[in-house]
Amino acid sequence: MTENLALLTDFYELTMMGGYHACHKIDQRAVFDLYFRKIPEQGGFCLAAGLQPALEYLLSLRFTNDDLDYLRAQKLFPEGFLDWLKDFRFRGNVYALPEGSLVFPGEPLLRVEGTLPETQLVESLLLNVINFQTLIATKSARVFEASGQGVILEFGLRRAQGVNGAMAASRAGYVGGAVATSNTMAGKKYGIPVKGTMAHAWVMSFSSELEAFRQYAATYPNDCTLLVDTYDTLLSGVPNAIQVGLEQREKGLSLRAIRLDSGDLAYLSKQARAMLDQAGLTESQIVASSDLDEFLIADLRAQGARIDVWGVGTNLVTSKGEPALGGVYKLVAADEDGIMVPRIKVSSNPAKITLPGIKQLYRCFGSDQMVHGDVLAMHDESVPSQGAMRSHHPLYAHIRQDVSGRWEPMLMQVVKAGELCCELPSLHEARQRSLTSLASLRAEHKRLVNPDIYWVGLSEGLFQLRRELLSRTPAPKQV
Amino acid sequence: MTENLALLTDFYELTMMGGYHACHKIDQRAVFDLYFRKIPEQGGFCLAAGLQPALEYLLSLRFTNDDLDYLRAQKLFPEGFLDWLKDFRFRGNVYALPEGSLVFPGEPLLRVEGTLPETQLVESLLLNVINFQTLIATKSARVFEASGQGVILEFGLRRAQGVNGAMAASRAGYVGGAVATSNTMAGKKYGIPVKGTMAHAWVMSFSSELEAFRQYAATYPNDCTLLVDTYDTLLSGVPNAIQVGLEQREKGLSLRAIRLDSGDLAYLSKQARAMLDQAGLTESQIVASSDLDEFLIADLRAQGARIDVWGVGTNLVTSKGEPALGGVYKLVAADEDGIMVPRIKVSSNPAKITLPGIKQLYRCFGSDQMVHGDVLAMHDESVPSQGAMRSHHPLYAHIRQDVSGRWEPMLMQVVKAGELCCELPSLHEARQRSLTSLASLRAEHKRLVNPDIYWVGLSEGLFQLRRELLSRTPAPKQV
Repeated sequence: MTENLALLTDFYELTMMGGYHACHKIDQRAVFDLYFRKIPEQGGFCLAAGLQPALEYLLSLRFTNDDLDYLRAQKLFPEGFLDWLKDFRFRGNVYALPEGSLVFPGEPLLRVEGTLPETQLVESLLLNVINFQTLIATKSARVFEASGQGVILEFGLRRAQGVNGAMAASRAGYVGGAVATSNTMAGKKYGIPVKGTMAHAWVMSFSSELEAFRQYAATYPNDCTLLVDTYDTLLSGVPNAIQVGLEQREKGLSLRAIRLDSGDLAYLSKQARAMLDQAGLTESQIVASSDLDEFLIADLRAQGARIDVWGVGTNLVTSKGEPALGGVYKLVAADEDGIMVPRIKVSSNPAKITLPGIKQLYRCFGSDQMVHGDVLAMHDESVPSQGAMRSHHPLYAHIRQDVSGRWEPMLMQVVKAGELCCELPSLHEARQRSLTSLASLRAEHKRLVNPDIYWVGLSEGLFQLRRELLSRTPAPKQV
Repeated sequence: MTENLALLTDFYELTMMGGYHACHKIDQRAVFDLYFRKIPEQGGFCLAAGLQPALEYLLSLRFTNDDLDYLRAQKLFPEGFLDWLKDFRFRGNVYALPEGSLVFPGEPLLRVEGTLPETQLVESLLLNVINFQTLIATKSARVFEASGQGVILEFGLRRAQGVNGAMAASRAGYVGGAVATSNTMAGKKYGIPVKGTMAHAWVMSFSSELEAFRQYAATYPNDCTLLVDTYDTLLSGVPNAIQVGLEQREKGLSLRAIRLDSGDLAYLSKQARAMLDQAGLTESQIVASSDLDEFLIADLRAQGARIDVWGVGTNLVTSKGEPALGGVYKLVAADEDGIMVPRIKVSSNPAKITLPGIKQLYRCFGSDQMVHGDVLAMHDESVPSQGAMRSHHPLYAHIRQDVSGRWEPMLMQVVKAGELCCELPSLHEARQRSLTSLASLRAEHKRLVNPDIYWVGLSEGLFQLRRELLSRTPAPKQV
C-alpha cells in the first residue's frame, strides 16, 4: 500500500482549503498547469519524469484521524472543515506528458483539473515529485549523451538527499539513461539492474592486495571487477589485477573489469588499457569513477581515455551544477457561474507572466522522426495533424515561425474523476521513451555549452488570448 | 515501526559481505570513521545532524525473506551466505557527536566498531542520512546567522529531493536554526511548528484582491498574513492589506503580517514598512520570500531592508551553492589475530590520506565558553582536562599550536553491542545545542566569505602513529 502523504503539503495549501470551505467555494472548478521556466545548467532540453509515483501518491491521498487530530491541535481550523476533510479524496482529472518525453520551458508537464480545494492541496506534492525526478532524469540524460550513449552506472546513494531522495534519484537516473544502480533497494523496488563489487576496505582488510583480489575472484568467479587504486594504481593495482586475470584464464574464466577510482583517469586508463592488452586481457573492461559529471566525461573522451563504463554518483543524484528544477504550479482557469474563465498572473518580470487557459501541447515530427518544434495551443483550438503551423515566440512578439510536419498532441489524460484512466508505461518503457526522445532531438540541442534553443511557440489562439487578458489588466509598476 | 532499510545499501557492500563470509572473515573486528574533508561553500563550520534517524535505521536493519529472495535472484550469492543473512543484526558499537555539535574537516561524526560485515553493510545508509542532514543543518545555520539570528521559515517542500528528501530537509533545517517549516507532515512527525497562509491562486480565485484579503481575514482572524504581490505590490497589494488591517483593528484584531514574494525586496520592504507605519499598523510584520539564501539576506540587511521574517525554500533544502557533503567512511583499524591494528589508506593526494587508529575528539573551551580549537587524539591517549595541549596541523608538519583551556571529549558512545545505550537528545534539544554551539564560535569563523579557519590539530600520539605507518608504506607514485 502506498504511504499516505496527505500532510506532505505546504501548510498554506491547508489554510487556503480551509478558506475555500469557509467561503463556500469548495465546488468552484479550477485548472492548474505544472511547468518550469528555465532548463537547469543552461541545457537545451529536459526529460519529464516522476509521473507514476506522483499519481500513486495523488490517488491514495486521504486524511486519517491522526492527521485530523494533528490539524485540530493547530487551533486554527473550524471543526466543520476538519469534518469535511474526512471524506476528502482527489476526484479531479489529470493530463500529463508521458515519462521520458522531451519537455521545454513553459510546457505543462501536468494539467490538473478539479475543485479549488483538491487542485490546491496537491500542489506541493506534485511539485516535489515531478521537479526532482525531471531534474535527475535530465541530468542522467546529459551524462548519458556526454558518454556517447555509453554505459552509465548510478552510484549516488551515499550522497543523495535522504532515503527517498536516493530511491527517487535511482529511479529517475534509470529513466534518463543510466543502465544500472548501486542502490539495492531501488533494484528490488523498481527492477533496475544493480551493480557493485568492492571498496578500498575490502582490499585493506587483507594482508596484501593480491590476496584480496584472489579471494574476491574465488568468491565471484563469473563477475569479478577489481578496484586497483588502494595502494598504487599502475605499480601495484593493475599488475596484481593482471596476475589474477591470468589465473582466472587458466581456470577458463575471465576478469570482467578493473575499476579506477582516483588519479588522472585519462592517463591511468590509457596506461592500464595498454598493460591489460599486453597481458592478453583484451576482454577485461575499465570502469571509472571519481566525481564524474557530463563535462568531465566529455573531456576525458576528448583526451582519448579508454573507459568502458562510467560510475557516476554525487553529481548525478544531486544534479550538482543546479540542484533544483524550479517547477511551478499556476492557476490558468477558474469557473465563474459555471463558465470556465481563463486566468492570468501578471508580473513586472515578463517571463513570469503565465500562459492563460486550458491548453494542449503539440509536437512536430519530420518524416525522419526528428522533432522540429512545439506549439502550445488552446485545448479546443483546431490544429492540423500534418502541415505547417504558424506560431509566436512566447516572449518576443515580433518573432514568429512556421513549423511544418506531423503534429502530435502530447498531453494525455491519465486520471479521470479521481481514477487512473489508462495504463501507465512501466519504468522500462519510460526509459525506452527517453532513448527514443533523445534520438529524435538534433545534436545541436543537446550540446552542453550554449545549445541551440528548441522552438516552443504559442498558437494564434493562445497568443491572442494572452494579449486580450493583459490589455484588461493594469500594467504593473516597475520597481 | 521503522521502515526496514537493509537493502538501502550499495550493492558492493553486499558483495563484500558475501566475500567476507566466503573467506571466513565474518568475525574479524573492524573500526570505521565517518567524516568529511571539506566544508561546503568554503564555509567556516558545519553542524552535525542526522544521528537519531541514522541510529533508528541502523538498529532496525534485518533481511526479510523478501529481501533474501531478491538477493537470491541475482544468482551471485552462495546459499550459505543468504542463510547467514537471515539472522543478521547490527551488534556493534557506535560513538557519535551529538546532533547540533560543531564539526570540522577530518573529525569523526561517527565511529563504528563491529565485525567486518556489519560495519561494512551500514556504510551507505549512514553516509546517506548523516551527509544530507549535516549539509542542510549547516546551510540552515548559515542562513540563520546571515539574518542576524532572525526568524527563518523553511519553505522548501516543493523543490526538495523527493518525499523523504523533504522530510529530512525540514528536520535538519530546524536543527540548524529555522524556527518553523511549511511541510505539514514534518510538523506532525517531528513536532516542528508549521507556518503558511496563502498563494497567488487564493487571490486570483476571487473577483478582487480586496475581497480575497477580506475573506482570508474573516476565516483566520487571529493569524492573518496577506500575500501582496499578485497584481502590484505597492499600488494594490499593500493598500488593500492596509485597508483590511484597519478593518481588523476596528474589530479589536490585528493584521499579523504582509508577505512580499517578488520584486526588489529591499526597496519594497522599506516602502511597505513606511506605508504600514503611516496607517498606524506598526505591529504588522513583513515576511519576505523569493529565492532567498544567506548571501542575499546579508545584502538585503546591509541595504536596510525592513524584513522581519525570512521564508527560505529551494536554496536551503538543496544547499544550492553546494548540494552534497562529501562525507566518507573509512577503515581505521582491523583486528589481526585478536589484536586491533590501526590501518591507513594512502593516496597521491595528501588530503586523502586517512587518519589511522581509534580516536577521540577533544574540544577546548575558554572560561568565556567560546571554543578555542580541537584536537584529535588516540582514544587511549592521556589528555588534560584543563590546560595547554600541543597539536600538529593535519597537513603541514611544520605548523604546531598550543591550545589552552578546558578540554571536553566530544564522541559519546550511543550504541553498545547493537543496543542504544543512552537517551538521545530530542529534536528540540538538538536545535538548542546548535544555538549554543553557534554562540560558542567566534564571528570570524562564521563569516560567509573567506572565514577564519578553525584549528583542528593532531595530538602527538596520532601524529606519530600516522608518520610511522606511512614510513612502512611504499610512497605512491605521482601521475
